[in-house]
Amino acid sequence: MNKQQRTVFYLSDRTGITAETLGHSLLTQFDGIAWEVVSVPFLDDIEKARAVSIKINEAAEQDDCRPLVFSTLLNPEVLEVIKQSNCRIFDFFETFIRSIEEELHLPFARMAGRSHGLQHHLSYFKRIAALNYVLAHDDGIRPKHYAEADIILIGISRSGKTPTCLYLGLQYGIAAANYPLTPDDMHRHALPQVLENVKSKLFGLTLSPAQLHSIRSERRPNSQYASLEQCEKEIQWQESLFRKCSIPYLDTTRISIEEISAIILTRCGLRRQLYG
Amino acid sequence: MNKQQRTVFYLSDRTGITAETLGHSLLTQFDGIAWEVVSVPFLDDIEKARAVSIKINEAAEQDDCRPLVFSTLLNPEVLEVIKQSNCRIFDFFETFIRSIEEELHLPFARMAGRSHGLQHHLSYFKRIAALNYVLAHDDGIRPKHYAEADIILIGISRSGKTPTCLYLGLQYGIAAANYPLTPDDMHRHALPQVLENVKSKLFGLTLSPAQLHSIRSERRPNSQYASLEQCEKEIQWQESLFRKCSIPYLDTTRISIEEISAIILTRCGLRRQLYG
Repeated sequence: MNKQQRTVFYLSDRTGITAETLGHSLLTQFDGIAWEVVSVPFLDDIEKARAVSIKINEAAEQDDCRPLVFSTLLNPEVLEVIKQSNCRIFDFFETFIRSIEEELHLPFARMAGRSHGLQHHLSYFKRIAALNYVLAHDDGIRPKHYAEADIILIGISRSGKTPTCLYLGLQYGIAAANYPLTPDDMHRHALPQVLENVKSKLFGLTLSPAQLHSIRSERRPNSQYASLEQCEKEIQWQESLFRKCSIPYLDTTRISIEEISAIILTRCGLRRQLYG
Repeated sequence: MNKQQRTVFYLSDRTGITAETLGHSLLTQFDGIAWEVVSVPFLDDIEKARAVSIKINEAAEQDDCRPLVFSTLLNPEVLEVIKQSNCRIFDFFETFIRSIEEELHLPFARMAGRSHGLQHHLSYFKRIAALNYVLAHDDGIRPKHYAEADIILIGISRSGKTPTCLYLGLQYGIAAANYPLTPDDMHRHALPQVLENVKSKLFGLTLSPAQLHSIRSERRPNSQYASLEQCEKEIQWQESLFRKCSIPYLDTTRISIEEISAIILTRCGLRRQLYG
Protein backbone atom coordinates (compact mmCIF):
# COMPACT_ATOMS: atom_id res chain seq x y z
CA MET A 1 0.00 0.00 0.00
CA ASN A 2 1.34 3.41 -0.91
CA LYS A 3 1.55 5.71 2.04
CA GLN A 4 -0.13 9.06 1.86
CA GLN A 5 2.44 11.84 1.44
CA ARG A 6 2.13 14.90 3.69
CA THR A 7 4.39 17.67 4.87
CA VAL A 8 5.00 18.82 8.43
CA PHE A 9 6.77 22.07 9.32
CA TYR A 10 8.50 22.69 12.66
CA LEU A 11 8.80 26.43 13.21
CA SER A 12 10.65 28.07 16.04
CA ASP A 13 12.29 31.33 17.11
CA ARG A 14 15.28 29.37 18.31
CA THR A 15 16.55 25.80 18.07
CA GLY A 16 13.30 24.09 17.15
CA ILE A 17 13.98 21.29 19.62
CA THR A 18 10.75 21.79 21.55
CA ALA A 19 8.58 21.99 18.44
CA GLU A 20 10.22 18.90 16.97
CA THR A 21 9.98 16.83 20.14
CA LEU A 22 6.31 17.65 20.65
CA GLY A 23 5.27 17.28 17.03
CA HIS A 24 7.17 14.04 16.67
CA SER A 25 5.43 12.63 19.77
CA LEU A 26 2.04 13.36 18.29
CA LEU A 27 2.72 12.22 14.73
CA THR A 28 4.23 8.89 15.75
CA GLN A 29 0.73 8.03 16.96
CA PHE A 30 -0.49 7.92 13.36
CA ASP A 31 0.33 5.20 10.89
CA GLY A 32 0.08 5.19 7.13
CA ILE A 33 1.55 8.60 6.36
CA ALA A 34 4.95 9.31 4.82
CA TRP A 35 5.99 12.62 6.35
CA GLU A 36 8.17 15.10 4.55
CA VAL A 37 9.75 17.01 7.43
CA VAL A 38 10.81 20.66 7.16
CA SER A 39 12.50 22.19 10.20
CA VAL A 40 12.89 25.94 10.32
CA PRO A 41 14.80 27.06 13.41
CA PHE A 42 15.70 30.71 14.14
CA LEU A 43 12.61 32.00 12.34
CA ASP A 44 12.82 35.43 13.89
CA ASP A 45 11.76 38.04 11.35
CA ILE A 46 8.94 38.79 8.96
CA GLU A 47 11.09 38.43 5.85
CA LYS A 48 11.96 34.84 6.77
CA ALA A 49 8.34 34.19 7.71
CA ARG A 50 7.17 35.25 4.26
CA ALA A 51 9.63 32.86 2.63
CA VAL A 52 8.39 30.01 4.83
CA SER A 53 4.80 30.91 4.06
CA ILE A 54 5.52 30.48 0.35
CA LYS A 55 7.09 27.08 1.03
CA ILE A 56 4.04 26.02 3.04
CA ASN A 57 1.72 26.96 0.21
CA GLU A 58 3.87 25.11 -2.32
CA ALA A 59 3.85 21.98 -0.15
CA ALA A 60 0.06 22.19 0.15
CA GLU A 61 -0.23 22.25 -3.60
CA GLN A 62 2.25 19.45 -4.14
CA ASP A 63 0.69 17.13 -1.52
CA ASP A 64 -2.82 18.17 -2.48
CA CYS A 65 -3.34 18.54 1.26
CA ARG A 66 -2.47 21.39 3.61
CA PRO A 67 0.65 20.85 5.71
CA LEU A 68 0.67 20.54 9.48
CA VAL A 69 2.66 23.24 11.25
CA PHE A 70 3.96 22.78 14.79
CA SER A 71 5.10 26.07 16.18
CA THR A 72 6.76 27.46 19.28
CA LEU A 73 6.98 30.93 17.73
CA LEU A 74 6.77 33.70 20.29
CA ASN A 75 6.79 36.68 17.97
CA PRO A 76 3.11 37.44 17.20
CA GLU A 77 3.91 39.18 13.92
CA VAL A 78 5.91 36.26 12.62
CA LEU A 79 3.16 33.87 13.72
CA GLU A 80 0.57 36.04 11.99
CA VAL A 81 2.36 35.69 8.63
CA ILE A 82 2.41 31.92 9.02
CA LYS A 83 -1.29 31.87 9.91
CA GLN A 84 -2.10 33.43 6.52
CA SER A 85 -0.68 30.33 4.82
CA ASN A 86 -2.58 27.27 3.69
CA CYS A 87 -1.86 25.06 6.71
CA ARG A 88 -3.16 23.74 10.01
CA ILE A 89 -1.20 25.31 12.88
CA PHE A 90 -0.64 23.70 16.26
CA ASP A 91 0.91 26.39 18.37
CA PHE A 92 2.33 25.10 21.63
CA PHE A 93 2.72 28.44 23.34
CA GLU A 94 -0.60 29.94 22.39
CA THR A 95 -2.38 26.77 23.42
CA PHE A 96 -1.05 26.56 26.94
CA ILE A 97 0.49 29.84 27.99
CA ARG A 98 -2.73 31.69 28.82
CA SER A 99 -4.02 29.01 31.14
CA ILE A 100 -0.66 28.89 32.87
CA GLU A 101 -0.66 32.68 33.29
CA GLU A 102 -4.09 32.38 34.79
CA GLU A 103 -3.02 29.59 37.13
CA LEU A 104 0.15 31.38 38.27
CA HIS A 105 -1.35 34.89 38.34
CA LEU A 106 1.75 36.03 36.49
CA PRO A 107 2.38 37.38 32.98
CA PHE A 108 4.74 35.38 30.77
CA ALA A 109 8.01 36.86 29.58
CA ARG A 110 7.67 36.25 25.82
CA MET A 111 11.40 35.75 25.53
CA ALA A 112 12.64 33.30 22.97
CA GLY A 113 15.44 30.90 23.67
CA ARG A 114 14.81 30.45 27.36
CA SER A 115 14.25 26.75 27.07
CA HIS A 116 17.45 25.67 25.36
CA GLY A 117 19.36 28.90 25.70
CA LEU A 118 20.42 30.89 28.73
CA GLN A 119 19.13 28.46 31.33
CA HIS A 120 20.99 25.67 29.68
CA HIS A 121 23.99 27.88 29.45
CA LEU A 122 23.97 28.46 33.20
CA SER A 123 24.39 24.74 33.65
CA TYR A 124 27.16 24.66 31.05
CA PHE A 125 29.91 23.93 33.52
CA LYS A 126 27.97 21.16 35.23
CA ARG A 127 27.24 19.56 31.94
CA ILE A 128 30.75 19.82 30.57
CA ALA A 129 32.08 18.46 33.85
CA ALA A 130 29.75 15.46 33.59
CA LEU A 131 30.70 14.90 29.97
CA ASN A 132 34.40 15.14 30.75
CA TYR A 133 33.87 12.60 33.49
CA VAL A 134 32.14 10.24 31.06
CA LEU A 135 34.86 10.56 28.43
CA ALA A 136 37.64 10.13 30.97
CA HIS A 137 36.01 7.02 32.46
CA ASP A 138 34.86 5.17 29.39
CA ASP A 139 35.57 1.49 28.92
CA GLY A 140 37.25 0.88 32.27
CA ILE A 141 39.67 3.81 32.23
CA ARG A 142 40.74 5.18 35.63
CA PRO A 143 38.68 3.01 37.98
CA LYS A 144 40.48 4.76 40.83
CA HIS A 145 38.13 7.72 40.33
CA TYR A 146 34.97 5.67 40.78
CA ALA A 147 34.25 7.36 44.09
CA GLU A 148 33.14 10.41 42.08
CA ALA A 149 30.85 8.46 39.75
CA ASP A 150 27.08 8.81 40.09
CA ILE A 151 26.73 5.43 38.41
CA ILE A 152 28.92 2.77 36.78
CA LEU A 153 27.45 0.79 33.90
CA ILE A 154 28.84 -2.69 33.34
CA GLY A 155 28.35 -5.18 30.56
CA ILE A 156 30.06 -7.13 27.82
CA SER A 157 31.40 -5.56 24.62
CA ARG A 158 28.72 -3.75 22.54
CA SER A 159 26.06 -3.88 25.22
CA GLY A 160 25.48 -0.13 24.83
CA LYS A 161 27.49 1.23 27.75
CA THR A 162 29.23 4.14 26.02
CA PRO A 163 26.24 5.71 24.24
CA THR A 164 24.16 5.42 27.40
CA CYS A 165 26.87 7.07 29.51
CA LEU A 166 27.21 9.90 27.00
CA TYR A 167 23.47 10.45 26.96
CA LEU A 168 23.32 10.47 30.78
CA GLY A 169 26.11 13.05 30.82
CA LEU A 170 24.79 15.31 28.07
CA GLN A 171 21.10 15.18 28.87
CA TYR A 172 21.10 14.89 32.65
CA GLY A 173 24.55 16.00 33.84
CA ILE A 174 25.16 12.58 35.41
CA ALA A 175 28.77 11.45 35.96
CA ALA A 176 28.49 7.98 34.44
CA ALA A 177 31.47 5.64 34.18
CA ASN A 178 31.47 2.30 32.45
CA TYR A 179 33.48 -0.86 32.85
CA PRO A 180 33.59 -3.73 30.35
CA LEU A 181 33.06 -7.34 31.32
CA THR A 182 35.36 -9.46 29.18
CA PRO A 183 35.57 -13.16 28.31
CA ASP A 184 38.60 -13.22 30.64
CA ASP A 185 36.32 -12.47 33.57
CA MET A 186 34.17 -15.47 32.67
CA HIS A 187 36.62 -17.92 34.19
CA ARG A 188 36.38 -16.31 37.59
CA HIS A 189 32.61 -16.23 38.04
CA ALA A 190 33.07 -13.15 40.16
CA LEU A 191 33.08 -9.41 39.66
CA PRO A 192 36.36 -7.88 38.55
CA GLN A 193 38.26 -6.96 41.71
CA VAL A 194 38.21 -3.25 40.95
CA LEU A 195 34.40 -3.18 41.15
CA GLU A 196 34.12 -4.82 44.55
CA ASN A 197 34.18 -1.57 46.51
CA VAL A 198 31.70 0.25 44.32
CA LYS A 199 29.01 -2.43 44.11
CA SER A 200 26.23 -0.06 45.12
CA LYS A 201 26.90 2.07 42.02
CA LEU A 202 26.85 -0.76 39.50
CA PHE A 203 24.14 -1.22 36.91
CA GLY A 204 24.23 -3.95 34.27
CA LEU A 205 23.23 -3.72 30.60
CA THR A 206 22.19 -6.82 28.74
CA LEU A 207 20.38 -7.61 25.50
CA SER A 208 19.23 -10.53 23.37
CA PRO A 209 21.89 -12.76 21.80
CA ALA A 210 20.41 -12.11 18.36
CA GLN A 211 20.68 -8.35 18.72
CA LEU A 212 24.21 -8.53 20.13
CA HIS A 213 25.17 -10.81 17.26
CA SER A 214 23.85 -8.30 14.76
CA ILE A 215 25.58 -5.35 16.46
CA ARG A 216 28.90 -7.16 16.74
CA SER A 217 28.67 -8.36 13.14
CA GLU A 218 28.59 -4.74 11.99
CA ARG A 219 31.92 -4.31 13.68
CA ARG A 220 33.67 -7.59 12.87
CA PRO A 221 31.68 -9.69 10.39
CA ASN A 222 32.08 -13.47 10.56
CA SER A 223 34.34 -13.33 13.61
CA GLN A 224 34.30 -15.65 16.58
CA TYR A 225 33.60 -12.47 18.62
CA ALA A 226 30.38 -11.82 16.69
CA SER A 227 29.17 -15.42 16.45
CA LEU A 228 25.75 -16.15 17.87
CA GLU A 229 27.23 -18.89 20.00
CA GLN A 230 29.77 -16.58 21.61
CA CYS A 231 27.10 -13.90 22.16
CA GLU A 232 24.83 -16.43 23.85
CA LYS A 233 27.62 -17.62 26.09
CA GLU A 234 28.68 -14.17 27.21
CA ILE A 235 25.14 -12.98 27.84
CA GLN A 236 24.21 -16.04 29.84
CA TRP A 237 27.34 -15.62 31.91
CA GLN A 238 26.87 -11.91 32.62
CA GLU A 239 23.20 -12.25 33.54
CA SER A 240 23.97 -15.00 36.00
CA LEU A 241 26.75 -12.82 37.45
CA PHE A 242 24.34 -9.88 37.84
CA ARG A 243 21.87 -12.10 39.68
CA LYS A 244 24.51 -13.72 41.85
CA CYS A 245 25.91 -10.34 42.92
CA SER A 246 22.47 -8.69 43.21
CA ILE A 247 23.35 -6.06 40.63
CA PRO A 248 20.31 -4.42 39.05
CA TYR A 249 20.27 -4.79 35.29
CA LEU A 250 18.21 -4.01 32.24
CA ASP A 251 17.49 -5.84 29.02
CA THR A 252 17.91 -3.12 26.38
CA THR A 253 16.68 -5.16 23.42
CA ARG A 254 14.37 -3.00 21.32
CA ILE A 255 14.49 0.07 23.54
CA SER A 256 16.18 3.35 22.78
CA ILE A 257 19.03 5.16 24.53
CA GLU A 258 16.49 7.68 25.84
CA GLU A 259 14.42 4.93 27.42
CA ILE A 260 17.41 3.08 28.81
CA SER A 261 18.61 6.30 30.43
CA ALA A 262 15.22 7.20 31.88
CA ILE A 263 14.79 3.69 33.31
CA ILE A 264 18.24 3.75 34.89
CA LEU A 265 17.58 7.13 36.50
CA THR A 266 14.30 5.92 37.92
CA ARG A 267 15.53 2.55 39.15
CA CYS A 268 18.70 3.96 40.72
CA GLY A 269 16.94 6.97 42.21
CA LEU A 270 19.44 9.30 40.56
CA ARG A 271 18.59 12.95 40.60
CA ARG A 272 18.68 14.65 37.24
CA GLN A 273 21.10 17.55 37.24
CA LEU A 274 19.67 19.29 34.20
CA TYR A 275 16.28 19.81 32.66
CA GLY A 276 14.93 20.52 29.20
CA MET B 1 12.68 38.81 47.44
CA ASN B 2 11.71 35.28 48.34
CA LYS B 3 10.50 33.34 45.39
CA GLN B 4 7.14 31.68 45.54
CA GLN B 5 7.51 27.92 45.96
CA ARG B 6 5.44 25.66 43.70
CA THR B 7 5.58 22.08 42.52
CA VAL B 8 5.39 20.77 38.98
CA PHE B 9 4.86 17.11 38.08
CA TYR B 10 5.88 15.56 34.76
CA LEU B 11 3.87 12.40 34.21
CA SER B 12 4.38 9.97 31.39
CA ASP B 13 3.76 6.38 30.32
CA ARG B 14 7.33 6.18 29.15
CA THR B 15 10.49 8.30 29.39
CA GLY B 16 8.88 11.61 30.28
CA ILE B 17 11.07 13.44 27.78
CA THR B 18 8.15 14.94 25.86
CA ALA B 19 6.30 16.07 29.00
CA GLU B 20 9.46 17.61 30.45
CA THR B 21 10.36 19.38 27.22
CA LEU B 22 6.91 20.90 26.93
CA GLY B 23 6.58 21.93 30.57
CA HIS B 24 10.10 23.25 30.79
CA SER B 25 9.60 25.39 27.66
CA LEU B 26 6.46 26.92 29.10
CA LEU B 27 7.63 27.42 32.68
CA THR B 28 10.88 29.13 31.72
CA GLN B 29 8.64 31.94 30.47
CA PHE B 30 7.70 32.78 34.06
CA ASP B 31 9.96 34.48 36.55
CA GLY B 32 9.70 34.64 40.31
CA ILE B 33 8.80 31.03 41.06
CA ALA B 34 11.05 28.42 42.62
CA TRP B 35 9.92 25.14 41.07
CA GLU B 36 10.14 21.86 42.87
CA VAL B 37 10.26 19.38 39.99
CA VAL B 38 8.91 15.83 40.27
CA SER B 39 9.36 13.59 37.23
CA VAL B 40 7.42 10.35 37.13
CA PRO B 41 8.29 8.32 34.03
CA PHE B 42 6.82 4.85 33.33
CA LEU B 43 3.56 5.67 35.10
CA ASP B 44 1.69 2.80 33.57
CA ASP B 45 -0.74 1.36 36.10
CA ILE B 46 -3.46 2.46 38.48
CA GLU B 47 -1.53 1.48 41.61
CA LYS B 48 1.32 3.81 40.69
CA ALA B 49 -1.18 6.51 39.71
CA ARG B 50 -2.77 6.38 43.16
CA ALA B 51 0.63 6.82 44.82
CA VAL B 52 1.36 9.81 42.60
CA SER B 53 -2.06 11.26 43.35
CA ILE B 54 -1.24 11.20 47.07
CA LYS B 55 2.06 12.96 46.40
CA ILE B 56 0.27 15.63 44.37
CA ASN B 57 -2.17 16.29 47.19
CA GLU B 58 0.65 16.50 49.72
CA ALA B 59 2.52 18.99 47.56
CA ALA B 60 -0.62 21.10 47.22
CA GLU B 61 -0.92 21.26 50.98
CA GLN B 62 2.73 22.01 51.53
CA ASP B 63 2.91 24.78 48.90
CA ASP B 64 -0.51 26.06 49.83
CA CYS B 65 -1.13 26.07 46.08
CA ARG B 66 -2.15 23.26 43.75
CA PRO B 67 0.69 21.79 41.67
CA LEU B 68 0.92 22.01 37.89
CA VAL B 69 0.88 18.66 36.13
CA PHE B 70 2.22 18.20 32.60
CA SER B 71 1.12 14.86 31.23
CA THR B 72 1.66 12.76 28.15
CA LEU B 73 -0.27 9.84 29.69
CA LEU B 74 -2.06 7.74 27.12
CA ASN B 75 -3.87 5.37 29.45
CA PRO B 76 -7.26 6.98 30.18
CA GLU B 77 -7.70 5.14 33.49
CA VAL B 78 -4.34 6.29 34.80
CA LEU B 79 -5.12 9.82 33.70
CA GLU B 80 -8.49 9.66 35.41
CA VAL B 81 -6.86 8.88 38.77
CA ILE B 82 -4.56 11.87 38.39
CA LYS B 83 -7.49 14.11 37.47
CA GLN B 84 -9.06 13.37 40.85
CA SER B 85 -6.08 15.02 42.56
CA ASN B 86 -5.76 18.62 43.66
CA CYS B 87 -3.85 19.93 40.64
CA ARG B 88 -4.07 21.75 37.34
CA ILE B 89 -3.45 19.33 34.49
CA PHE B 90 -2.02 20.24 31.11
CA ASP B 91 -2.47 17.11 29.11
CA PHE B 92 -0.50 17.17 25.95
CA PHE B 93 -2.19 14.35 24.05
CA GLU B 94 -5.75 15.19 24.99
CA THR B 95 -5.15 18.78 23.91
CA PHE B 96 -3.87 18.07 20.43
CA ILE B 97 -4.58 14.54 19.35
CA ARG B 98 -8.26 15.02 18.43
CA SER B 99 -7.60 17.94 16.13
CA ILE B 100 -4.81 16.02 14.45
CA GLU B 101 -7.09 13.00 14.01
CA GLU B 102 -9.63 15.29 12.43
CA GLU B 103 -7.03 16.87 10.16
CA LEU B 104 -5.57 13.53 9.05
CA HIS B 105 -8.88 11.63 8.93
CA LEU B 106 -7.12 8.86 10.82
CA PRO B 107 -7.50 7.43 14.33
CA PHE B 108 -4.45 7.62 16.58
CA ALA B 109 -2.75 4.49 17.82
CA ARG B 110 -2.75 5.19 21.57
CA MET B 111 0.51 3.34 21.90
CA ALA B 112 2.96 4.57 24.47
CA GLY B 113 6.66 4.78 23.79
CA ARG B 114 6.46 5.46 20.11
CA SER B 115 8.23 8.76 20.34
CA HIS B 116 11.41 7.73 22.08
CA GLY B 117 11.01 4.01 21.73
CA LEU B 118 10.76 1.79 18.72
CA GLN B 119 11.20 4.49 16.09
CA HIS B 120 14.32 5.65 17.79
CA HIS B 121 15.38 2.08 18.02
CA LEU B 122 15.10 1.63 14.29
CA SER B 123 17.69 4.36 13.90
CA TYR B 124 19.88 2.76 16.55
CA PHE B 125 22.55 1.66 14.10
CA LYS B 126 22.70 5.04 12.39
CA ARG B 127 23.05 6.77 15.70
CA ILE B 128 25.66 4.42 17.09
CA ALA B 129 27.59 4.66 13.84
CA ALA B 130 27.58 8.48 14.07
CA LEU B 131 28.60 8.36 17.72
CA ASN B 132 31.40 5.92 16.99
CA TYR B 133 32.59 8.24 14.26
CA VAL B 134 32.60 11.18 16.67
CA LEU B 135 34.52 9.27 19.34
CA ALA B 136 37.03 7.91 16.85
CA HIS B 137 37.68 11.37 15.35
CA ASP B 138 37.83 13.55 18.42
CA ASP B 139 40.62 16.04 18.91
CA GLY B 140 42.38 15.51 15.62
CA ILE B 141 42.52 11.72 15.65
CA ARG B 142 42.59 9.95 12.26
CA PRO B 143 42.31 12.93 9.90
CA LYS B 144 42.72 10.43 7.06
CA HIS B 145 39.06 9.51 7.51
CA TYR B 146 37.81 13.07 7.04
CA ALA B 147 36.26 12.15 3.70
CA GLU B 148 33.51 10.40 5.68
CA ALA B 149 32.82 13.35 7.98
CA ASP B 150 29.63 15.36 7.58
CA ILE B 151 31.37 18.27 9.27
CA ILE B 152 34.69 19.04 10.96
CA LEU B 153 34.69 21.52 13.84
CA ILE B 154 37.89 23.43 14.44
CA GLY B 155 38.98 25.74 17.25
CA ILE B 156 41.46 26.24 20.04
CA SER B 157 41.51 24.18 23.23
CA ARG B 158 38.25 24.39 25.25
CA SER B 159 36.27 26.09 22.54
CA GLY B 160 33.52 23.47 22.88
CA LYS B 161 34.34 21.18 19.97
CA THR B 162 33.92 17.79 21.71
CA PRO B 163 30.56 18.38 23.43
CA THR B 164 29.14 19.87 20.25
CA CYS B 165 30.32 16.90 18.16
CA LEU B 166 28.83 14.45 20.65
CA TYR B 167 25.53 16.29 20.63
CA LEU B 168 25.46 16.35 16.82
CA GLY B 169 26.09 12.60 16.81
CA LEU B 170 23.62 11.62 19.52
CA GLN B 171 20.81 13.99 18.65
CA TYR B 172 21.03 14.19 14.89
CA GLY B 173 23.12 11.21 13.75
CA ILE B 174 25.72 13.54 12.19
CA ALA B 175 29.28 12.25 11.70
CA ALA B 176 31.15 15.17 13.25
CA ALA B 177 34.93 15.21 13.57
CA ASN B 178 36.94 17.88 15.34
CA TYR B 179 40.46 19.17 15.00
CA PRO B 180 42.25 21.38 17.51
CA LEU B 181 44.05 24.58 16.56
CA THR B 182 47.11 24.86 18.76
CA PRO B 183 49.53 27.66 19.66
CA ASP B 184 52.01 25.87 17.39
CA ASP B 185 49.79 26.65 14.42
CA MET B 186 49.90 30.33 15.32
CA HIS B 187 53.36 30.79 13.85
CA ARG B 188 52.23 29.64 10.44
CA HIS B 189 49.22 31.88 9.93
CA ALA B 190 47.74 29.14 7.79
CA LEU B 191 45.45 26.18 8.24
CA PRO B 192 47.10 22.98 9.40
CA GLN B 193 48.11 21.09 6.24
CA VAL B 194 45.81 18.18 6.98
CA LEU B 195 42.75 20.42 6.74
CA GLU B 196 43.58 21.88 3.34
CA ASN B 197 41.68 19.26 1.35
CA VAL B 198 38.56 19.33 3.49
CA LYS B 199 38.07 23.09 3.67
CA SER B 200 34.45 22.90 2.62
CA LYS B 201 33.61 20.82 5.70
CA LEU B 202 35.26 23.10 8.24
CA PHE B 203 33.33 25.12 10.80
CA GLY B 204 35.02 27.24 13.47
CA LEU B 205 34.01 27.68 17.10
CA THR B 206 35.04 30.77 18.99
CA LEU B 207 34.03 32.52 22.22
CA SER B 208 34.86 35.53 24.35
CA PRO B 209 38.31 35.67 25.98
CA ALA B 210 36.67 36.07 29.41
CA GLN B 211 34.61 32.91 29.02
CA LEU B 212 37.53 30.92 27.64
CA HIS B 213 39.64 32.15 30.56
CA SER B 214 37.02 30.97 33.02
CA ILE B 215 36.63 27.56 31.31
CA ARG B 216 40.38 26.99 31.10
CA SER B 217 40.84 28.08 34.71
CA GLU B 218 38.56 25.26 35.83
CA ARG B 219 40.96 22.89 34.18
CA ARG B 220 44.35 24.44 35.03
CA PRO B 221 44.00 27.28 37.49
CA ASN B 222 46.62 30.06 37.37
CA SER B 223 48.38 28.56 34.36
CA GLN B 224 49.82 30.43 31.40
CA TYR B 225 47.37 28.33 29.34
CA ALA B 226 44.37 29.78 31.21
CA SER B 227 45.62 33.37 31.46
CA LEU B 228 43.35 36.02 30.01
CA GLU B 229 46.24 37.29 27.91
CA GLN B 230 46.87 33.90 26.31
CA CYS B 231 43.12 33.41 25.71
CA GLU B 232 42.90 36.80 24.01
CA LYS B 233 45.89 36.06 21.81
CA GLU B 234 44.64 32.65 20.68
CA ILE B 235 41.12 33.87 20.00
CA GLN B 236 42.27 36.86 18.02
CA TRP B 237 44.53 34.63 15.98
CA GLN B 238 41.93 31.96 15.23
CA GLU B 239 39.23 34.46 14.27
CA SER B 240 41.56 36.16 11.84
CA LEU B 241 42.47 32.75 10.41
CA PHE B 242 38.77 31.88 9.95
CA ARG B 243 38.20 35.14 8.11
CA LYS B 244 41.31 34.82 5.98
CA CYS B 245 40.38 31.28 4.90
CA SER B 246 36.65 32.07 4.55
CA ILE B 247 35.72 29.44 7.11
CA PRO B 248 32.26 29.99 8.62
CA TYR B 249 32.42 30.31 12.40
CA LEU B 250 30.22 30.95 15.41
CA ASP B 251 30.72 32.85 18.64
CA THR B 252 29.35 30.44 21.25
CA THR B 253 29.56 32.82 24.23
CA ARG B 254 26.37 32.50 26.26
CA ILE B 255 24.64 30.00 24.01
CA SER B 256 23.97 26.37 24.76
CA ILE B 257 25.18 23.20 23.05
CA GLU B 258 21.65 22.74 21.67
CA GLU B 259 21.69 26.16 20.09
CA ILE B 260 25.22 25.82 18.76
CA SER B 261 24.26 22.52 17.12
CA ALA B 262 21.03 23.85 15.62
CA ILE B 263 22.84 26.91 14.23
CA ILE B 264 25.58 24.76 12.69
CA LEU B 265 23.02 22.47 11.04
CA THR B 266 21.18 25.43 9.59
CA ARG B 267 24.23 27.34 8.41
CA CYS B 268 25.90 24.30 6.88
CA GLY B 269 22.71 22.97 5.34
CA LEU B 270 23.25 19.58 6.99
CA ARG B 271 20.38 17.16 6.90
CA ARG B 272 19.37 15.72 10.24
CA GLN B 273 19.49 11.96 10.24
CA LEU B 274 17.23 11.53 13.25
CA TYR B 275 14.12 13.15 14.61
CA GLY B 276 12.50 13.45 17.98
